[in-house]
Amino acid sequence: MSDANDTNDTNDSIWQGAGRRIHIQEVGLRDGLQMEAAFVPTADKIALADALSEAGLAKIEVTSFVSPSAIPVLRDAEIVMREIARRPGVVYTALVPNVRGAERAIEARTDELNLVMSASATHNLANLRMTQAQSFAALAQVIATAQAAGVPVNVSLSCVFGCPMEGDIAQHAVFDWVQRFVDLGVQGLTLCDTTGMAYPTQVRALAAAARQRWPRIAFTLHFHNTRGMGLANVLAGIAAGVDRFDTSLGGMGGCPYAPGASGNVCSEEIVHALALMGYDTGVDLDRLVAAAARLPALIGHAPPGQIVQAGRRLDLHPVPPDFEATRARALARA
Amino acid sequence: MSDANDTNDTNDSIWQGAGRRIHIQEVGLRDGLQMEAAFVPTADKIALADALSEAGLAKIEVTSFVSPSAIPVLRDAEIVMREIARRPGVVYTALVPNVRGAERAIEARTDELNLVMSASATHNLANLRMTQAQSFAALAQVIATAQAAGVPVNVSLSCVFGCPMEGDIAQHAVFDWVQRFVDLGVQGLTLCDTTGMAYPTQVRALAAAARQRWPRIAFTLHFHNTRGMGLANVLAGIAAGVDRFDTSLGGMGGCPYAPGASGNVCSEEIVHALALMGYDTGVDLDRLVAAAARLPALIGHAPPGQIVQAGRRLDLHPVPPDFEATRARALARA
Repeated sequence: MSDANDTNDTNDSIWQGAGRRIHIQEVGLRDGLQMEAAFVPTADKIALADALSEAGLAKIEVTSFVSPSAIPVLRDAEIVMREIARRPGVVYTALVPNVRGAERAIEARTDELNLVMSASATHNLANLRMTQAQSFAALAQVIATAQAAGVPVNVSLSCVFGCPMEGDIAQHAVFDWVQRFVDLGVQGLTLCDTTGMAYPTQVRALAAAARQRWPRIAFTLHFHNTRGMGLANVLAGIAAGVDRFDTSLGGMGGCPYAPGASGNVCSEEIVHALALMGYDTGVDLDRLVAAAARLPALIGHAPPGQIVQAGRRLDLHPVPPDFEATRARALARA
Repeated sequence: MSDANDTNDTNDSIWQGAGRRIHIQEVGLRDGLQMEAAFVPTADKIALADALSEAGLAKIEVTSFVSPSAIPVLRDAEIVMREIARRPGVVYTALVPNVRGAERAIEARTDELNLVMSASATHNLANLRMTQAQSFAALAQVIATAQAAGVPVNVSLSCVFGCPMEGDIAQHAVFDWVQRFVDLGVQGLTLCDTTGMAYPTQVRALAAAARQRWPRIAFTLHFHNTRGMGLANVLAGIAAGVDRFDTSLGGMGGCPYAPGASGNVCSEEIVHALALMGYDTGVDLDRLVAAAARLPALIGHAPPGQIVQAGRRLDLHPVPPDFEATRARALARA
């Protein structure tokens, strides 16, 4: 394995997408906007969600049904969820913290409820102000509410690849929580790298183990680009057989523990790269980039995503103004 | 290959470094600093080079022996190259554009001369103001000068993975230039992604083909992170059997065709990721990060590299000040 000449063709499977379907799940409207200081006007949120629907994203996390006083910038959750244009085939999900939120989300015709707790006891307490046991009990009630309404549930487990306060979280601890939610009948689980601590070797191993143990669960991987490993972690996930990834338009979203560092992996960067590699994301990159280009006007600053700034790889540039003169001088020397 | 369940173990070779040696070649002092507006004082350049030597980098591109009027910020090439502390085993290289530069570099005891021309005719003319034939003829003279002095030569071919003005460059065109330099007896060739157009599938294929055709040539890959694919491209290069990569401290360096986009792949990000994956870079990450942390004071702004900002993945953070009170309230509810 450590042989520099080990370039056998079976290694090519990750480098050759060969049309394999990868589901890109947009979290910018929730995970991204909730980190922004500015309230994006409701009509602009709806227009952005509609642009993302038209771009062909597989799933869109539209908003969060938390208390409006807890996250004021998402206080318009109901109206946004009600007024977006539903594109057939797209799953419109929303974060839900409790039964009250679940009732609001279901009433607003949310396709799927996304529940959150942390694999780290410390992070769960710091972030959600509950013990893990309290969070699990509360989410069990939410799951029962969703099931009574016939609405699917996804659980996003934070800090699966490490906690910024505790450090590494043992795989068995992560998997114990996965098993408990699987036992409650959830449809999907998202393994979240909440503060950008995941690295490819770890992703490859943990995701493969999860898929092997729960082959009927839809696993999503959720990465932040905090330390520059975002795309590499996505590829490690694909190597492990995962085909669903959370990404954020413009790379919005942050990491409160790493000020100034990049946020979530960037939707248009991931789609750009995977398309070049031959994967089928189902996303129209032109439309996605156009949606990302709207962000500075909406959030008041440029997000970290680089495709809007640099263009796609074959968005070519003109030659410099003095090019013909340079050529003439060069040829005159020949 | 497109089967989502294709997670056979042979794919693990890239995800498990298993102690494999990867040579990290620092280009920040040349490729990075030449893009900066500020002149970094000579003593600071020397101190930075010495810090990089102590960090264990395999090769350091110390400066550029161009005309001082062409790149004023590197006008102190001789004194920097003469006064750095030479650590045994480290290769101290410098960019050399012509015979005059080669003579200066050799006189200053440069270990290796790094020559540059572009695989793109348009980029060569725009950037070097010569036709490719003129560049090759000039570099052939430089190579003869180096060989007469017994100094090894590396040739860096720009735009191998695409030209921002021409678009894709045919592999046979790239390989024709490689062959011509191999025929002149150079020791190494660097395949440069000058403006961040490379993508992993392309890197994997081109690098593997080059290694297969010229097994005795030391190939280096040189990437920019312009579109967020830097680390993924490094891993694709490793999958192709390449073990030498150019990186830049702090991710300094730029891409004049993509203002605001990231520069070279960042030394401390690449070392951080490869170390986590079990590769042996020989680099002391603590020392490298400490060197990168000096950059804002030297260049007047924060470079794009994220490790200095976010810390290494296990640089843990304290719990919030209200943590014990939060815990007490939570437990009181139980």
